[in-house]
Amino acid sequence: MVVHEMTAQECRELLARTNLARLACAANNQPYVVPIHVDFHRDHLYGFATEGLKIEWMRRNPLVCLEVDDFSSQTHWASVVVFGRYEELPPVPEYEDLRRVADELFQKHPMWWQPASVPLPGHEQRPSIVYRIRIDRMTGRRSSDEPVKTPPIKETPPEEMQPGWLTRVLRRLS
Amino acid sequence: MVVHEMTAQECRELLARTNLARLACAANNQPYVVPIHVDFHRDHLYGFATEGLKIEWMRRNPLVCLEVDDFSSQTHWASVVVFGRYEELPPVPEYEDLRRVADELFQKHPMWWQPASVPLPGHEQRPSIVYRIRIDRMTGRRSSDEPVKTPPIKETPPEEMQPGWLTRVLRRLS
Repeated sequence: MVVHEMTAQECRELLARTNLARLACAANNQPYVVPIHVDFHRDHLYGFATEGLKIEWMRRNPLVCLEVDDFSSQTHWASVVVFGRYEELPPVPEYEDLRRVADELFQKHPMWWQPASVPLPGHEQRPSIVYRIRIDRMTGRRSSDEPVKTPPIKETPPEEMQPGWLTRVLRRLS
Repeated sequence: MVVHEMTAQECRELLARTNLARLACAANNQPYVVPIHVDFHRDHLYGFATEGLKIEWMRRNPLVCLEVDDFSSQTHWASVVVFGRYEELPPVPEYEDLRRVADELFQKHPMWWQPASVPLPGHEQRPSIVYRIRIDRMTGRRSSDEPVKTPPIKETPPEEMQPGWLTRVLRRLS
């Protein structure tokens, strides 16, 4: 297995075909990571949540990191890491256009938001939040099937692999 | 779909059957999240890496967060979030016993460490690091198939569902 750096285009392709991401935020240098569903659109990842720890922390510190991957197997995988910035899209006229963009993206996956919005038994439904992450920088790595290139072996090959070996064996047998 | 808080035992079971985790660390309040392979053993998660950004950051700030999940589908999933502390296990006599524990765990998955240890083309093989994360606290959520419980309907049921409906129908037919 060989590991390659992914090009920017390959990173974008993975973001476009995957909606499941792991979002890391941090407060007082304590990181926190959770799975979320996002939609990639023009250098932003759009998401939906109910109020909770991650929203509270991202409001305090908008620096975030997301990881999106495709682990078909331990030898066939790709992983993209995004560094970005949290931006909330509140229901006010200023954000109307962006909320419409988000809404259109979310409509493509009618079920996707349920894990974020279904309350735990005994809990009230909490206010829902629409947000996006501006992608500042991203890097990706992927595996490939190419064999690992090793330097050519300098040792003398065994006798049976050297030219004329069959002639020499027959001569000994005769 | 109903979402449940997982018990401590359910969280441990998920950690025990999954080796793929997402590890978040942070430096100067900038989070960083990457996929890693870990082995769960007695309140610790054991891992292996080559020197790089995450090791550098965890040496500076040992507070970490890991997420382990099982997304069979968007309606059947479980996710455990672990808050913990990074501890390096260097190759010195003091850590010999713990490195042996780690080594035995790693032997169960002969391929698992490859993504972390295969150098990118043109890069030198970097020193390998064995570490563990002490689990300080964890929480988990899972979905279940149970229908969402709604309050009982107070309306009068349709005639055919009220007691004595068959008698009444037969009386009409006779």
